Amino acid sequence: METIVLKSEPHRAGRQWKFAGAFYYATTVLTTIGYGHSTPSTIGGKLFTMCYAMIGIPLGLVMFQSIGERVNRLSSVIIRSVKSSLHCRQKEASELDLICVVTTLSSLTIAGGAAAFSRYEGWTYFDSVYYCFITLTTIGFGDMVALQKDSALSDKPEYVMFALIFILFGLAIVAASLNLLVLRFVTMNTEDERRDEAQAMQALAGAVRLEGDVITANGSILSGQLGHHLLPMHELHPPQGPIVPSPAIYTNHRASI
Amino acid sequence: METIVLKSEPHRAGRQWKFAGAFYYATTVLTTIGYGHSTPSTIGGKLFTMCYAMIGIPLGLVMFQSIGERVNRLSSVIIRSVKSSLHCRQKEASELDLICVVTTLSSLTIAGGAAAFSRYEGWTYFDSVYYCFITLTTIGFGDMVALQKDSALSDKPEYVMFALIFILFGLAIVAASLNLLVLRFVTMNTEDERRDEAQAMQALAGAVRLEGDVITANGSILSGQLGHHLLPMHELHPPQGPIVPSPAIYTNHRASI
Repeated sequence: METIVLKSEPHRAGRQWKFAGAFYYATTVLTTIGYGHSTPSTIGGKLFTMCYAMIGIPLGLVMFQSIGERVNRLSSVIIRSVKSSLHCRQKEASELDLICVVTTLSSLTIAGGAAAFSRYEGWTYFDSVYYCFITLTTIGFGDMVALQKDSALSDKPEYVMFALIFILFGLAIVAASLNLLVLRFVTMNTEDERRDEAQAMQALAGAVRLEGDVITANGSILSGQLGHHLLPMHELHPPQGPIVPSPAIYTNHRASI
Repeated sequence: METIVLKSEPHRAGRQWKFAGAFYYATTVLTTIGYGHSTPSTIGGKLFTMCYAMIGIPLGLVMFQSIGERVNRLSSVIIRSVKSSLHCRQKEASELDLICVVTTLSSLTIAGGAAAFSRYEGWTYFDSVYYCFITLTTIGFGDMVALQKDSALSDKPEYVMFALIFILFGLAIVAASLNLLVLRFVTMNTEDERRDEAQAMQALAGAVRLEGDVITANGSILSGQLGHHLLPMHELHPPQGPIVPSPAIYTNHRASI
């Protein structure tokens, strides 16, 4: 990337297109933060950025969402064991417990990150909180950008590492919150529809595949063998056969789901 | 917002914090584009932006994802009717068809938007494509921002309308692609687990709630009424009652799902 993307804002500090700077730039592209502290100025650079983003952003989204889901699952395991050790009546982790944990984690991440950034960058604590918030929501205005002072990108590798880990860890926590608060509702329609479809199929299959011994409601057992060939649905309604009274089994079965 | 957020970059053109500019700013915050062409500089402005984003971004996400899902559903209806009229063998819209349609829509949106922006802003066509791409992926570097020349925000209301509609429409199309390509995979684990759980519950419920008339495999109809109280699971295994031969109905039933 260094060879095709040129340093576009030479008035900012730091060696923007050495490895650390390029990595920082790539992170802001893939996470869609897009501070704009360094941007491609050549046609090749812009083209590469577009191709890179087109592949990288969906992959990044999948990665952060997967991590977020795992954070949620880990949280629920921890909540359950804590509740177990406290001998709570309700041992399962509820949605509300999870939301509380993830909100606390997000707040701690922003508070901790802000403390570090205000120390390293010389910002006020409030400004650092604002920077962390704008970064982790991926708004990324670029009015305040970390790693731009005192050639931090080349001279303070531990600070660069911290800033990048903060962004990746913070985004994972935010992804966990979004997974919990938004995505479940967003995919609910699709999920419900699929489940309804699957259930309709099952009801149909259940009506036909009633094979083996049947215990009726009055307690008697009926032996019935379909053998190895299953009757197709229409054979249950033979025009010359016995009339099936309504509600028949498949109607009942569907209604019971 | 105008009263608490101050114009922070007075060197840029346009009245940034009049209604049109503030609306543009709010759009860049809620969509997480965050060009950074105008940013809050006061403590009140930053605080308001954070609160606004904390509520608005999840709502925006839900909105765009809902629209995206509806775009996908509309596409599949259109594909189905086109296939019907062309007398295709496979009448259902496959996932691949949908991906093709949504990709074409995205490309057309970017191509069309780029043509308009290159005309209004005097950018080259390639730069306009780059701008549209960086905007619709919500990276929003802010190296190129529409509506900043010739006091467009106050003097060209039709162009302002076009730019905002382009962003909202474009993001809906991008959301449709993401819904199709990413979100379904991301929520697959959760979905599968829930479906498995629901099915296990149904299998259990199905074994108990076999109510009404039963058609056995040999064709006879058995009338059995549980009445209004359903037998709990353990009552199907009365120790003194008739021994249920295996495979019994609930075993079969579970296996058939």
